[in-house]
Amino acid sequence: MTESMFTVNNLWLLIATVLVFIMHLGFASLEAGFVRRKNTVNILFKNCMIIAIGLLTYYAVGFNLMYPGGDFAGGFFGFAGFGIANPEGAAGLIEYADGNYTYYTDFIFQAMFAATCCTIVSGAVAERIKLMPFLVFCVLFVTISYPITGMWKWGGGWLDAKGFYDFAGSTIVHSVGGWGALAGIILLGARKGKYKKGKTQPIPGHSMPFAAVGVFLLWFGWFGFNGGSVLSADAGAVALVFVTTSLAAAAGAIGAFLVSYIMFKTYDLSMVLNGILGGLVGITAGADLMGPGASIIIGFIAGCIIPLSVVFFDKLKLDDPVGATSVHLVCGIWGTLAVGIFGAKAGLGQLGIQALGIAAIGVFTFAFAFALFYVIKLVSGIRVSEEEEVKGLDITEHEMEAYTGLGKVAYDLAVK
Amino acid sequence: MTESMFTVNNLWLLIATVLVFIMHLGFASLEAGFVRRKNTVNILFKNCMIIAIGLLTYYAVGFNLMYPGGDFAGGFFGFAGFGIANPEGAAGLIEYADGNYTYYTDFIFQAMFAATCCTIVSGAVAERIKLMPFLVFCVLFVTISYPITGMWKWGGGWLDAKGFYDFAGSTIVHSVGGWGALAGIILLGARKGKYKKGKTQPIPGHSMPFAAVGVFLLWFGWFGFNGGSVLSADAGAVALVFVTTSLAAAAGAIGAFLVSYIMFKTYDLSMVLNGILGGLVGITAGADLMGPGASIIIGFIAGCIIPLSVVFFDKLKLDDPVGATSVHLVCGIWGTLAVGIFGAKAGLGQLGIQALGIAAIGVFTFAFAFALFYVIKLVSGIRVSEEEEVKGLDITEHEMEAYTGLGKVAYDLAVK
Amino acid sequence: MTESMFTVNNLWLLIATVLVFIMHLGFASLEAGFVRRKNTVNILFKNCMIIAIGLLTYYAVGFNLMYPGGDFAGGFFGFAGFGIANPEGAAGLIEYADGNYTYYTDFIFQAMFAATCCTIVSGAVAERIKLMPFLVFCVLFVTISYPITGMWKWGGGWLDAKGFYDFAGSTIVHSVGGWGALAGIILLGARKGKYKKGKTQPIPGHSMPFAAVGVFLLWFGWFGFNGGSVLSADAGAVALVFVTTSLAAAAGAIGAFLVSYIMFKTYDLSMVLNGILGGLVGITAGADLMGPGASIIIGFIAGCIIPLSVVFFDKLKLDDPVGATSVHLVCGIWGTLAVGIFGAKAGLGQLGIQALGIAAIGVFTFAFAFALFYVIKLVSGIRVSEEEEVKGLDITEHEMEAYTGLGKVAYDLAVK
Repeated sequence: MTESMFTVNNLWLLIATVLVFIMHLGFASLEAGFVRRKNTVNILFKNCMIIAIGLLTYYAVGFNLMYPGGDFAGGFFGFAGFGIANPEGAAGLIEYADGNYTYYTDFIFQAMFAATCCTIVSGAVAERIKLMPFLVFCVLFVTISYPITGMWKWGGGWLDAKGFYDFAGSTIVHSVGGWGALAGIILLGARKGKYKKGKTQPIPGHSMPFAAVGVFLLWFGWFGFNGGSVLSADAGAVALVFVTTSLAAAAGAIGAFLVSYIMFKTYDLSMVLNGILGGLVGITAGADLMGPGASIIIGFIAGCIIPLSVVFFDKLKLDDPVGATSVHLVCGIWGTLAVGIFGAKAGLGQLGIQALGIAAIGVFTFAFAFALFYVIKLVSGIRVSEEEEVKGLDITEHEMEAYTGLGKVAYDLAVK
Repeated sequence: MTESMFTVNNLWLLIATVLVFIMHLGFASLEAGFVRRKNTVNILFKNCMIIAIGLLTYYAVGFNLMYPGGDFAGGFFGFAGFGIANPEGAAGLIEYADGNYTYYTDFIFQAMFAATCCTIVSGAVAERIKLMPFLVFCVLFVTISYPITGMWKWGGGWLDAKGFYDFAGSTIVHSVGGWGALAGIILLGARKGKYKKGKTQPIPGHSMPFAAVGVFLLWFGWFGFNGGSVLSADAGAVALVFVTTSLAAAAGAIGAFLVSYIMFKTYDLSMVLNGILGGLVGITAGADLMGPGASIIIGFIAGCIIPLSVVFFDKLKLDDPVGATSVHLVCGIWGTLAVGIFGAKAGLGQLGIQALGIAAIGVFTFAFAFALFYVIKLVSGIRVSEEEEVKGLDITEHEMEAYTGLGKVAYDLAVK
Repeated sequence: MTESMFTVNNLWLLIATVLVFIMHLGFASLEAGFVRRKNTVNILFKNCMIIAIGLLTYYAVGFNLMYPGGDFAGGFFGFAGFGIANPEGAAGLIEYADGNYTYYTDFIFQAMFAATCCTIVSGAVAERIKLMPFLVFCVLFVTISYPITGMWKWGGGWLDAKGFYDFAGSTIVHSVGGWGALAGIILLGARKGKYKKGKTQPIPGHSMPFAAVGVFLLWFGWFGFNGGSVLSADAGAVALVFVTTSLAAAAGAIGAFLVSYIMFKTYDLSMVLNGILGGLVGITAGADLMGPGASIIIGFIAGCIIPLSVVFFDKLKLDDPVGATSVHLVCGIWGTLAVGIFGAKAGLGQLGIQALGIAAIGVFTFAFAFALFYVIKLVSGIRVSEEEEVKGLDITEHEMEAYTGLGKVAYDLAVK
């Protein structure tokens, strides 16, 4: 490896890190837009804390749990020690990973991914979860659960040995977040008024512009999420990933547009926004394996799934204000299976292995998240009181409103 | 070409692609900010669909129409076939374009440009056009019209042979969008209440913060739009383009500030915002040919043009809610002419050729867009009913509001 | 230096330029979110003008004042002439700075930094300063004061000779802005109603979502601000800077979260947002010298400082609507001192030199800014009338509102 190839490969991973970072603003904007005005400060606060918690715990524990190196217990568990090495005098920090990037580059790129799994949960449990119990959940979920299942594949664990394929994390990142979200919304119950007399009541988000900003920023960041997962600046591979990622997102919009129009006879912006995200999640597992045509089909199907899945979860009275389970769990599963159906690894054997990986990671993660939420619920409770829910979490948890300046009278009207 | 130069050149084009992508959020934010609250969901919806349509049709048809390669009909028309080649086994996908970038890199960079022409139209026709007829227009405009005129220059067609120069698309992208916008607003007519008793009534946009976010994001993305158009990471050329682009945008702000203050005796934020965009559009045709001084003059003049042009179109009762015709059409023409007046190619001969290119592309595009809108108008109508316009497109087309949570009474007041 | 290393080094500086550029949107969003609704257009207008003024004056004068080259008056003052050289035929523009980047790259990267010092001031003096006097202040502050003190270190001046260290500008950029802000708020006085009967009255910002968007964008841009200050794409150095910058920001959030909870018994979003910024400002002086552990401590302390500092300034009745003095001045001083306490340069001698640099730049900048504001105050006044302050600057300076569309009755209620 020449010095210049090392430098350009490393640079691309660092730039991809920056792009993945801004996905946290994407999630914050999207979730803020999809919740009600009275819970907006709360969701922003949670997203600020999640990125802080994610980075610090991944430094302290997560990275070494996810990439333990060397031999470890049957490919299921390993730990390389607390913290990450100090840079002084450590030539090993630079000469690392076949010379494509440095140790610190690897850490910071992976650290930006880690917090994502909690961000996905935060949207689903929004508008009724208590702040501190949620943050405690996040600390343990991102420190322990995410790195262990991540190691199974990306850390060279048992699923990797079996041939499971998940390029950039349809399962390892997105469905992991989705399973955590599912556990949370089962234990929390629906928001007050969401399901009345057997009917689903729409509770529209308070700002469609912020929701749209969030989706565009997520797509923007996804170029780093998928493109960086090439783990080098290899021209052919990164370019292919950019094409498949973009076309799948575009096809996801079209799929959600068509199916939601057929189902609801209207042009539903929130479905198209989630359709784009569904397409992105769907292509993530195999973004480097597909041609353009296959990526369009995968994204289109993911987009079609979105409105069906949203209605399905509502039928089960599983209340998810932002559609995170449909986007990240359902489309994450779809994208991981698609690796066995389309592209360079398609085949029945691969499809079986993909299903095994989905199931193993799903069972572990759901069990971990459910048990964790359950224990926290027993210890401190996880749901705010009915009065707090009606008043909104911004006032009750933060003594602050998201927006001011409407004047006293308009404000009094507004809180009614 | 060494492997490392190939990789870094290709990487810059891919990063520029990401920057151009986020311009679509810039347009969406800007247009959302400049329309009324009741039409915000509609403009966001259109911008989501435009990027999806743009990418998919450019994959299917547009790219091969714009870059047909080989011999074609007198430099006016050519087509390389549907779709783009599958990556497997195709060494030709990598060895491409003098080794600066891959085939897929070229496709995705150009694809991000393509949808821009429709986005420009969407702002101008906002607040009164029917959704589905608009989307049909977009499909045909971006699939057929944009690639054909683009090919005349960038695909090696007859204007390229004549020496016409348009570095990153003042004419090929921006004025093409502007001509489409002009055709649309002529056929649509003004918004209800815009011109009363011979006077122009201001209809202020509903959110100046979103408009400002849009302009900053567009400037941000323009570093990729112009910088990527170098088509390599050549240090001297990209650095120069960054300098000329930045200084022109800054000078555009100053120009619009001064002229709008003289004209209106107030500090008009919307003029300064459009002045920045005018400066950016103005420098785009010759961003690689100018020194810093010339780029300041070009941007300053573009900024000065903005308030004059906005008033001029209003005199003609051509109603453009976001000023897209002033920014993209008028400043696009100015920037293309400026290539013949300033910088490395200045000269009367070049000025004539620039005028020829502007005229040829203008006539073709305006005729195509006008005919297309006209046929759609005959078939299905293009304008919503007066009742729908008054109620707003968000409720009538999408059964959704952009903002909720003001409470029932405030809401009832708000919709009055 | 090979061609490919030159190209990749230069490319990183240009990409860092783009990231620093978007910090201006970060500042604009943050400040817009933290001011009242009635002053939102005003703050957006100022931020548009500041970037324009900053770029143009830095081209005309600032760059040559900050980087005079050769011998100059005792390391205190020098000037290389107006404007920057024209590119034609100038091989020297390319062969520059040890072959790491071009002359134009250097200019545009530094130019993006320059405007930052005024942006910091704009937040602190918001909601009561007159527009034109403020813009006059900005022109002179960014053209003269910022480049002179910047030269003392980065231009090879006397502080550089003494061994003062400020990697990316905790002092040279952030505390310079902070001193300007302090001078401004002393001379302006507090906003009407901020301090009543010896008590501080909270005046909450009008949009927490915009404030949060601003902070995330600033963090995003800081990867370029600090990462680009490596002045090459050196893999080890840039990766380390990314790690220290990220961990300090995360620890800043935690520090502000804990201290503000202890002080106010609530989860205060604005403190956490400013805690992130405090952590970023704090690490900026030594981002390349610290290990991960030290960067966490530095960021954590900076975060802890934020709520204490905000309360301290309020005790002094120094009214700063966005907390700019706490973030940029106090944490800028802290970060510069931290270079003498932690990391590769720690030592009592270094600590003394750091203090000297802080004091020298502080005295010069505060004196310059105070005198400048004072003269402008004498000549034209700097504060709007009480009536204008009550009505809001959007209406009185810009004849425009930030938001429309609430309907006539709700609007009448809103302005009460």
